[in-house]
Amino acid sequence: MSAETGGTANGQDSPLITQMRTEIGEQPQALRATLDGLLPRTGEVAAVAEDTRQVLLIARGTSDNAAVYGSYLLQVHAGRLATLASPSVATTYHSRADLSGILAVALSQSGRTEEIVETLDWARQCGARTVAITNSADSPLADGADLSLVTQAGTEQAVPATKTFITQLAALAVLGIGLGADVDPGELRRVPDEIERMLAGPGDIEGAAADLAGAAGMVVSGRGFAYATALELALKLKEACYLHAMGLSYADLLHGPIAVVDPQTPAIIVAADSGPALDGAVKLARRVTGAGATALAIGGGQELARESSRALPGPLLPEWLAPIGLIVPGQLLTEALARRLGLNPDAPRGLSKVTQTA
Amino acid sequence: MSAETGGTANGQDSPLITQMRTEIGEQPQALRATLDGLLPRTGEVAAVAEDTRQVLLIARGTSDNAAVYGSYLLQVHAGRLATLASPSVATTYHSRADLSGILAVALSQSGRTEEIVETLDWARQCGARTVAITNSADSPLADGADLSLVTQAGTEQAVPATKTFITQLAALAVLGIGLGADVDPGELRRVPDEIERMLAGPGDIEGAAADLAGAAGMVVSGRGFAYATALELALKLKEACYLHAMGLSYADLLHGPIAVVDPQTPAIIVAADSGPALDGAVKLARRVTGAGATALAIGGGQELARESSRALPGPLLPEWLAPIGLIVPGQLLTEALARRLGLNPDAPRGLSKVTQTA
Repeated sequence: MSAETGGTANGQDSPLITQMRTEIGEQPQALRATLDGLLPRTGEVAAVAEDTRQVLLIARGTSDNAAVYGSYLLQVHAGRLATLASPSVATTYHSRADLSGILAVALSQSGRTEEIVETLDWARQCGARTVAITNSADSPLADGADLSLVTQAGTEQAVPATKTFITQLAALAVLGIGLGADVDPGELRRVPDEIERMLAGPGDIEGAAADLAGAAGMVVSGRGFAYATALELALKLKEACYLHAMGLSYADLLHGPIAVVDPQTPAIIVAADSGPALDGAVKLARRVTGAGATALAIGGGQELARESSRALPGPLLPEWLAPIGLIVPGQLLTEALARRLGLNPDAPRGLSKVTQTA
Repeated sequence: MSAETGGTANGQDSPLITQMRTEIGEQPQALRATLDGLLPRTGEVAAVAEDTRQVLLIARGTSDNAAVYGSYLLQVHAGRLATLASPSVATTYHSRADLSGILAVALSQSGRTEEIVETLDWARQCGARTVAITNSADSPLADGADLSLVTQAGTEQAVPATKTFITQLAALAVLGIGLGADVDPGELRRVPDEIERMLAGPGDIEGAAADLAGAAGMVVSGRGFAYATALELALKLKEACYLHAMGLSYADLLHGPIAVVDPQTPAIIVAADSGPALDGAVKLARRVTGAGATALAIGGGQELARESSRALPGPLLPEWLAPIGLIVPGQLLTEALARRLGLNPDAPRGLSKVTQTA
């Protein structure tokens, strides 16, 4: 069974080639267009952030997972505290706080998710400078922000977001560069080619999907930069495969949820090929396989592969950019697993494309 | 089967009366001792927080769930931005940021979890004022902080923390009062009696446990203040019952994971009896039961009970204090469900009392 033929367990519900698979393939182009649009604008980022010291990220769902990447990038490489907002503080409780000196960055694919628009408005009223990261220049979120960084994901029809996530990460990388991150911006330009290379040789995705097909639940774990990838992959698996996939940093995992890992509960462990978080990922894989459970590695190089039951190769990118590539095997895995389970990943039950939270 | 007889499905693994059940019963006394020790110290909180504008909470596991409560309390009632730190920024990446003007509050039951001690040290070196909330006055965390608020949970032998969580919430309530929260401190004094009342008439815990006994996974959802309760209950169910329990705010749930809710996947919905988050909880219960799934309400009064498949009564407390009581039915449920599944909640596999994250 291959991605091209799109066969499923019961052959009934899945299209031959899913929209999700098509959109996964469009990511290098979406990334190139996004970087072309945004890399020249780092000066505007620096200007809007003047006199701010820290960043407050405002998002929900897939965008929230992208925001986690942003928080690590800004804290590790741009020397700024960067944490995540709780939108209900603004939308449900209508509280007030002094947000002067804070750069509020809101992410929404459509730019129309009301609670995100409302929370960025709240941040501005509380004294924050505001940035919107959205795929729609003509949206309430972009209209209301001091600066908007518009991604070029193009149209996304499958409900599980793919291009949205990857282009949001790229926009956050540009934001980080604008805020003075100690990274080489030239490396960011390499990412689309690297993802193209990964798509051409993704490893045995169908085999990995087969390994996971019998599990009712699983844990997806990563630390630091790769924590964002773990959260996003867990969300994809919940959305498209209806699996009880728990995204956890490996530190959180060891503080309790490790109890759920048993031979029926596989763990997916995500890591960049280098960097200080890799060692913990390797130890976790050893612990998981030691408990008789399946450990599926995504990235982490030979070191992680050696301790895991199966490994899918990650991107050849430095840790600060690895999450843009690390999600790709996870997206392919989600799509393949959905088909294998007889589900249509393009249209999961209970979900629509723009989510409003009452 | 009752909590007193402690029967189990296979009768082999559980003690007759579990340590966890005993410790749940000790919570009113632990709370009284904690409040006696801490309520007189709000002036010291105000002093250490002078010239700070916002709060950064540092924690992991159960303490992290308590920190979520703190973030809502401080943001909704004390007009301060209060967000959660990512310890790995300090411990794995050794980054630097300007944290002047920030009150860093670290929570650790033992006061010895190295990454929490190290992250609070990092915060101080970055210019933050520091507060430790710990159950051990004689611990590295307390030693290193500008101010330590010591809880009186006493000895906790069962691995799933109960007294620890509830006394941490009380310490955070005292912190909020010290930071000028617009609440009535007298209400906090009522909480131990209210929990005593709940323990005397907890509703049909065994019936609720029976409803959940066949499920491999479930979602546990709450919003705002009750989000902390949802996260903590999900952690308890993972730790003690090995269930794939996903703690989610209801806003996050609607952004994707709602796809997993089906007749085999119950939802536990936690809410205070009043407050602006209640309406969303009621709507969520309606959606869950409308999808043919079981909705178990904890708290939320008659309004939430009406829309749910089963309801356990919550505390008669205002929303800002409700989480201290709302976890109690969840603790009893976890303990009862573990016994029903033939597990010993006092000693889950793979866990020990002080967790070190390598």
